[in-house]
Amino acid sequence: MALNPAYEAIGKGFVSQYYAFFDDPNERSKLANLYNQETSFMTFEGMQLQGALKIMEKLTALTFQKINRIITSVDSQPMFDGGVLISVLGRLQTDEDPPHAYSQTFVLKPVGTSFYIQHDIFRLALHDSL
Amino acid sequence: MALNPAYEAIGKGFVSQYYAFFDDPNERSKLANLYNQETSFMTFEGMQLQGALKIMEKLTALTFQKINRIITSVDSQPMFDGGVLISVLGRLQTDEDPPHAYSQTFVLKPVGTSFYIQHDIFRLALHDSL
Repeated sequence: MALNPAYEAIGKGFVSQYYAFFDDPNERSKLANLYNQETSFMTFEGMQLQGALKIMEKLTALTFQKINRIITSVDSQPMFDGGVLISVLGRLQTDEDPPHAYSQTFVLKPVGTSFYIQHDIFRLALHDSL
Repeated sequence: MALNPAYEAIGKGFVSQYYAFFDDPNERSKLANLYNQETSFMTFEGMQLQGALKIMEKLTALTFQKINRIITSVDSQPMFDGGVLISVLGRLQTDEDPPHAYSQTFVLKPVGTSFYIQHDIFRLALHDSL
C-alpha cells in the first residue's frame, strides 16, 4: 500500500476526534470503536494493555469528570502500510489537580477507508516540566 | 513477521546507543548508519526530512558541543512487521542554554537481524514545561 498523502489532515482530524470523545465522560465509551478487539496495544503510564476490552476497562475507570486540555503540537508521518504515525504533546488538567504536561503517540492502521488505533502510548509528566 | 518479544530490551538498547552517538560531536556522524537512504522519515521541530542524507545534513548542522541529557521514560511496543515503536520523554540542556523538556518517537524497522529508523519525530518544548 502506498503512503497516504493526506497524513497531516488525517493526524489532526484523528486527534481532534479522539480527544472530543476522551474529554467528555458521556462520550468516552465511544473510544471503544477506535480500537481493535485483538490487535490494539496501549501503554498507559507504563502499563501494557492489549485489545479494545482491556484498554476501555482502563480508560472508563478514570474517575475525573472535567478535563482542560491544551494541544501544544501534533506531528504526523505517513507509514508504508498506508497508516499514520502521530506524536502529540500537550498539557492537561483534570478536575482541580494542577496541570501536567503529557505526550501521546498513536499509530493508525488503515482498514478499508478508515483507520483504527494499532498503537497508543500515553505518558503524563510526573512533574509539570517532565 | 511475528511480534518481537524482546521489544522492551530492543527499545532501551536502541535509545542508549542512539543518544551515545548523538550527544558526542565526534560520534554524531555515525547516526547516518541508523537511517535508510530513502525510506527514513524525520520530523525535527516540525520540519519534514526524508532519507539519511537530508536527515544527517540537519543533525550535523546542530552547533552545540555539550549536551546534558536526562531520560525520563522509554516506552516500547512490538509492531506487527517485527519492528518496535519507541516513545522517549526527557530533558536536555545544550551548551549554556536552560534545560528543555523534549519528546522523541522512533519506529524501528527490522532488516535481517538488525533495525533501521523508519520514523523519527523530535520536539523540544518551547517552554520548559511544554
